[in-house]
Amino acid sequence: MSPTFSSLLRHHRHHRLLRHQLPLLLFLRHHQTSSSPPLRIPLSHPTFLIWSSNTSLGKTLISTGLAFVSLFSPAPAPSKFLYLKPVQTGFPSDSDSLFLFNKLASLSLLHKPRFPILASHRVLKTSASAALSLSESPRHGGSLDFGMVDLGICEERRLEGERSGSGNGDGAVSELVSETIFAWKEAVSPHLAAERESGVVDDSVVVEMVQKGLRVGQRDGKEEMLCVVETAGGVASPGPSGSLQCDLYRPFRLPAVLVGDGRLGGISATISAYESLRIRGYDVVAVVFEDHGLLNEEPLMAYFRNRVPVLVLPHVPEDLSNDLMEWFTDSRSIFDMLKNIMKSSYLERMQTLLDMPKKARDMFWWPFTQHKHVSEDGITVIDSRYGENFAVFKDQDDRSLNQMFDACASWWTQGPNASLQTELARDMGYAAARFGHVMFPENVYGPALECAELLLDGVGEGWASRVYFSDNGSTAIEIALKMAFRKFSVDVGILSENSIGDASEKQPELLVLALKGSYHGDTLGAMEAQSPSSYTGFIQQPWYTGRGLFLDPPTVFLHRNVWKLSLPAMIHNESFEFDKMTFSSRDEIFCKSRDESDLSGIYSSHISQHLSGSRGSKYIGALIIEPVIQGAGGMLMVDPLFQRVLVNECRRRKIPIIFDEVFTGFWRLGTESAAALLGCAPDIACFAKLMTGGMIPLAVTLATNAVFTAFLGESKLKALLHGHSYTAHAVGCTAAAKSIKWFKDPRMNHNVTPQGKVLKELWDFELITQISSHPAVQRVISLGTLFALELRAEGSNAGYASLYARALLQMLREDGVYVRPLGNVIYLMCGPCTPPELCSQLLVKLQRNLEEFYLVHGKVERGAVTNAK
Amino acid sequence: MSPTFSSLLRHHRHHRLLRHQLPLLLFLRHHQTSSSPPLRIPLSHPTFLIWSSNTSLGKTLISTGLAFVSLFSPAPAPSKFLYLKPVQTGFPSDSDSLFLFNKLASLSLLHKPRFPILASHRVLKTSASAALSLSESPRHGGSLDFGMVDLGICEERRLEGERSGSGNGDGAVSELVSETIFAWKEAVSPHLAAERESGVVDDSVVVEMVQKGLRVGQRDGKEEMLCVVETAGGVASPGPSGSLQCDLYRPFRLPAVLVGDGRLGGISATISAYESLRIRGYDVVAVVFEDHGLLNEEPLMAYFRNRVPVLVLPHVPEDLSNDLMEWFTDSRSIFDMLKNIMKSSYLERMQTLLDMPKKARDMFWWPFTQHKHVSEDGITVIDSRYGENFAVFKDQDDRSLNQMFDACASWWTQGPNASLQTELARDMGYAAARFGHVMFPENVYGPALECAELLLDGVGEGWASRVYFSDNGSTAIEIALKMAFRKFSVDVGILSENSIGDASEKQPELLVLALKGSYHGDTLGAMEAQSPSSYTGFIQQPWYTGRGLFLDPPTVFLHRNVWKLSLPAMIHNESFEFDKMTFSSRDEIFCKSRDESDLSGIYSSHISQHLSGSRGSKYIGALIIEPVIQGAGGMLMVDPLFQRVLVNECRRRKIPIIFDEVFTGFWRLGTESAAALLGCAPDIACFAKLMTGGMIPLAVTLATNAVFTAFLGESKLKALLHGHSYTAHAVGCTAAAKSIKWFKDPRMNHNVTPQGKVLKELWDFELITQISSHPAVQRVISLGTLFALELRAEGSNAGYASLYARALLQMLREDGVYVRPLGNVIYLMCGPCTPPELCSQLLVKLQRNLEEFYLVHGKVERGAVTNAK
Repeated sequence: MSPTFSSLLRHHRHHRLLRHQLPLLLFLRHHQTSSSPPLRIPLSHPTFLIWSSNTSLGKTLISTGLAFVSLFSPAPAPSKFLYLKPVQTGFPSDSDSLFLFNKLASLSLLHKPRFPILASHRVLKTSASAALSLSESPRHGGSLDFGMVDLGICEERRLEGERSGSGNGDGAVSELVSETIFAWKEAVSPHLAAERESGVVDDSVVVEMVQKGLRVGQRDGKEEMLCVVETAGGVASPGPSGSLQCDLYRPFRLPAVLVGDGRLGGISATISAYESLRIRGYDVVAVVFEDHGLLNEEPLMAYFRNRVPVLVLPHVPEDLSNDLMEWFTDSRSIFDMLKNIMKSSYLERMQTLLDMPKKARDMFWWPFTQHKHVSEDGITVIDSRYGENFAVFKDQDDRSLNQMFDACASWWTQGPNASLQTELARDMGYAAARFGHVMFPENVYGPALECAELLLDGVGEGWASRVYFSDNGSTAIEIALKMAFRKFSVDVGILSENSIGDASEKQPELLVLALKGSYHGDTLGAMEAQSPSSYTGFIQQPWYTGRGLFLDPPTVFLHRNVWKLSLPAMIHNESFEFDKMTFSSRDEIFCKSRDESDLSGIYSSHISQHLSGSRGSKYIGALIIEPVIQGAGGMLMVDPLFQRVLVNECRRRKIPIIFDEVFTGFWRLGTESAAALLGCAPDIACFAKLMTGGMIPLAVTLATNAVFTAFLGESKLKALLHGHSYTAHAVGCTAAAKSIKWFKDPRMNHNVTPQGKVLKELWDFELITQISSHPAVQRVISLGTLFALELRAEGSNAGYASLYARALLQMLREDGVYVRPLGNVIYLMCGPCTPPELCSQLLVKLQRNLEEFYLVHGKVERGAVTNAK
Repeated sequence: MSPTFSSLLRHHRHHRLLRHQLPLLLFLRHHQTSSSPPLRIPLSHPTFLIWSSNTSLGKTLISTGLAFVSLFSPAPAPSKFLYLKPVQTGFPSDSDSLFLFNKLASLSLLHKPRFPILASHRVLKTSASAALSLSESPRHGGSLDFGMVDLGICEERRLEGERSGSGNGDGAVSELVSETIFAWKEAVSPHLAAERESGVVDDSVVVEMVQKGLRVGQRDGKEEMLCVVETAGGVASPGPSGSLQCDLYRPFRLPAVLVGDGRLGGISATISAYESLRIRGYDVVAVVFEDHGLLNEEPLMAYFRNRVPVLVLPHVPEDLSNDLMEWFTDSRSIFDMLKNIMKSSYLERMQTLLDMPKKARDMFWWPFTQHKHVSEDGITVIDSRYGENFAVFKDQDDRSLNQMFDACASWWTQGPNASLQTELARDMGYAAARFGHVMFPENVYGPALECAELLLDGVGEGWASRVYFSDNGSTAIEIALKMAFRKFSVDVGILSENSIGDASEKQPELLVLALKGSYHGDTLGAMEAQSPSSYTGFIQQPWYTGRGLFLDPPTVFLHRNVWKLSLPAMIHNESFEFDKMTFSSRDEIFCKSRDESDLSGIYSSHISQHLSGSRGSKYIGALIIEPVIQGAGGMLMVDPLFQRVLVNECRRRKIPIIFDEVFTGFWRLGTESAAALLGCAPDIACFAKLMTGGMIPLAVTLATNAVFTAFLGESKLKALLHGHSYTAHAVGCTAAAKSIKWFKDPRMNHNVTPQGKVLKELWDFELITQISSHPAVQRVISLGTLFALELRAEGSNAGYASLYARALLQMLREDGVYVRPLGNVIYLMCGPCTPPELCSQLLVKLQRNLEEFYLVHGKVERGAVTNAK
């Protein structure tokens, strides 16, 4: 498109609705994504991104055609058309928004009958040099050599119809808004123009401005409305910051129209562009291209198999003097068709979103959910996720998609920021195409091997030598228990000839040593290693017996800015002084010098007491612990000294040590493995959740060589006969390998310290201090990506089944933070790469809502708590 | 490239090494993919595909440059360069192979010192009209209007060097082979040219011819060799059949060089083309493009983050008369760099493949594998999978990748053919980018909902109303048992107040009713529902007790072409006539009229006998069966009448029915759900494996509304408190939705009958008959995608741990069929879309190898079997 800007200036000077003077030179300050307010994308009317598979394929012609058929419909209902061009180069000689504005004016003259239309054109911000080309003498002289200029051009015209404003009966007039947001002078790629003209704009600023632009497009009344956002160049052309445009606009995930290529080679270009959009999560509703007589539509239709309609526009006259009026008229039926496709796909999307809660309530059986308490409006409709955020559909007032921070990390699985998610999507597509899934036993293939190497060099470093793959934490635990029991049985010599196969002879009984409040998964074997709780009653699992010796662990927590130790009654010791039960800092808790303390001795003798003594044919065949934090148990931080002493006592007795790192692994607690925090290694460890970056299920059980050799022998029946269909599936291993590398690489993860061993502190110290001192708060834990607080609560308000925190949950969700409490424990969980500023925002929101919650709900509890004291 | 073909004709007439007369008109018959021999891709030297992001970006210049630096290296070691152009349009005026051939001749004159080179140029097959343009009077007149002509043009030249043939000391001469395989006349997209010139070539023929072409390129000795296969147009341009070229060449999965686009818009085009290659499983080793002064390399390098090197070639003179000699000379260092990148990436790939077995043996802990018996050369290195086939690396004689049919369906998970795999890869990439994974409880999102709808309308049709998601068969079974026990407990009123939570009071004991030989998974809860076996001994799982009543089921099988019934001893009944123990056909076995037979009554009273009688505080709280086929138990076909009677007897007693369809579901046995074969519905059913099309783990437990309501109540503690981190993960649900739809759609799956309820017979009746009569064969089962046979074996040769079939396994693997026996049971398993012709090929191979196996191993067994009679 190449209308000159002089016409704009001309209109500007002479038009009666001129509102602003040009150019207002306000410089914009770049700012970080993290401080942007949560996105809100209006869904009251159809909004589309117009992409193209290459530059110069006529995106603007198509936008113009859409505006044409939208505003000049045969039945002249009032309508509104919003055109946004966020990024324009070659400005002012190229201005797609001006082209559309002018062309519509010309087309309005052609149309019979003519309707009145209120048309406006705006250019918001340009580079200094582009602004200079507009006016001969810049007002702010020297300051023009960097940054973007707030141009604020606005021109409005009333395109008078044959029938005047009242023609459609109610006085409403159709409206066109055509807007360029950012413009640069050079007719090159935006990143180059921005750089050369010292007008680089951060992605977050573009996103914010587009969001503002979309708000301009809010429907005023009941008029038909269509909104298009036209990209620049091809789908993967860089935007002003250098980010690819398909990544830049991803937070909106607007449905797309793809302008294809009708030339030789255009089939390939169109398909590849489509695929780039798809693997970024976009929905393409139509492909449209200019006819070059090559019948490109046939293979495209074969490829799209009628999933995406393919429309062909007449050839565009090459004669530059042609005003295209004839072409637009000839193309009208195609544009009508395209508009209808867009409108009906919008309506279909709306219907789908609106129907979802009811359908979900009718068909799903959600885990851990009492369905009797789920109402349709209590169901969250998630349209997509991008990095740490959900896009949640809301059917309140005006329909919209709303950004929500996934503060429950979707059951503690999440790690990726937006960049990692994009890379994982592409890599997973690659792995699916290259491998799908292939048989694992006695085979080898790249992703499984790479994943195993990274695990043994990472979380297994220094102790593990074997990797056993399975699907989730629970299966990994079942495998770990089988490993530990075999190792123990071999070591203490309790295997008999009858141990193999179908034996009715009485066998010894093996118990597991575990901590009360621990959680290891929901399959029976994992449940048996847990102490009795609400999860394990007859009503939940009639087969549960609790095959363990369960110890009550001492815990630590922050309260009123002091880290405190809480000893279970059984450990209390008269010689131990009460004032030693606080710590000067969290670091002190993890300090290895505590091994020499009195408390260490007290722990040791307490444990010894439990482990000694005869059990007849019963043996303790394994120790299993969640290192440092018991997650599902309520985010309890166990005194690491106690766990370290426990490990040592078991090792002395040849009891194999299992670390359940399903929750704690992969930086959840600030180190790649929580074993590093404890300062001791297990014989067996289980990992899952964050391992694939939060994409798909995959679990591993790592083991030492000594454990492995307990399964060697002549008979296959001595091998570990446990496996799952998708053992070491390639897609999961690929995602895991990518995520493991990404999280620990300081170039990718800015939270990793240069030494690469520990995450920097993500939660603001000052805010933590304040929250830990709040009267509604019982205790606080902050470690790595986890911040948790327990609300003071008594009686039925405490515990897993408590609904006490429900109100706070609702308030936080309204505030854009998706929390999911564990009874009266509220936690915030970010990813290993989440910037600390974002964590602070979350804490501020938590604090604000906690205050409000306390004002309403605190009173009742306050009485109770005071009495309890 | 536009050299005219006249030069070729000229050389042809005058050259001394002229071998063939032109044109030999042999018409090629199209044939099906299924009958192609297994692919073998040589790895003795580097072979690359040259792709480009659009047409006319200079692929042939780059091929020529590579040939130039390969053949004229400063140290004149003899080398060989093979150039293949499988698809050429615009022929003969355009001929890339001729351009390269001629250009090399010109370049050889430039090079100092000049080496002797043996250069040959071939054009194998053209359309009739292309052939006609070559010779004025076609020899075969009327027959030229359809099909492809076997042209057989061959020209050889000896480009004499300054130093003659013996220049490098040992008489070896460098060699250039430049070959066009298929050519059409019109300068349009290959699919159009092929159609218009009535010369459409099937993909399988192109693949076969390229494979032949690559064999031409086998190294003769120790010379340096480089081979490039140059595609036509862009990466996703259609080939001659209309298939996209990136799909057409996927069976080879050759590493790629991508020729990018240096023009405006070229960044986007290059990235999109790269992504299209990636999501088809290709490895791209370098991107190279012509400089247009736009600095496109900067954003490309940022995008590739140094994973893929980006090389920039000097601008190509636009003057058509320019012979490019100067350009090639100027570009030499870039071509050298490119060649070195290609060579080192080849060497690295080889090293990786060679190292894999040792690393795998050192790090993996394979499931169900006695590691003591695994030697390094017993490990299969799988480079990739495409549809039903693995590409297996072999380090024998000449290194190569070898196509192997995955006849174990990778633990029964596999379903996709190549097309479905490609689509799944793209859709999974989309789901990962759009959702990653999001929290499920009380939430809803598209893929989970679509998957649930498809399940309830498909395998759950008519009975199920709720979908519970989990990760694998074993977890789905654990959930099913919890559901069944709750339903039973509520129905018979055995829940007390103490059933919730931590209760020490004595609770009733619940047992499961199951069949001997059944398998339901390896987690403890699933194991407890299995009868004691090698999998369940103390050595494997000390906690196993076998909490069931296990019945010995009657089985059916084919032997000597007769379907027979085998009754367990306990059921034998004097009034039952022995001659009723055979069936006229397999259909008769499934016939509902058998419900009225004497045998039905015998089954019924046998079962009643087991179910009646007091058990004190013990109750049978669930029935669990694998409908029709017990998979892991050795592919045993249980008499469906027996299972139907069992279901009815349990239903009368309010015992909830669980179908374990993890193995049998999704067309494995020829119907979408095996319940359709049995002719009765369960209350609860478990699905996994094939559900995602064989891509990644996902499982569901379906339940009736009556089961669901047993969990409703005021307290959350009455809800089903069982869940896994990645419950209903979006990527898995997306794969499942796609696969479920694909398998049942007759347009996608040609094996589905138009009624859509059943697969056509995939296994050839005649071959089955023969195999079932073979003296080495004990019994045969063929149903749906499964063909299984049990080898006659006695003593230690029988059963799960038997190594008896090991030799047959080796023979079949050598023959391109990847089998994995269950003890002495050998099975072949295809996907729901696998063409029957391919199944027949597998049966033929099985029969052939069985014969050979019997000759060697049968003797010993024969004696034993005779005695046993």
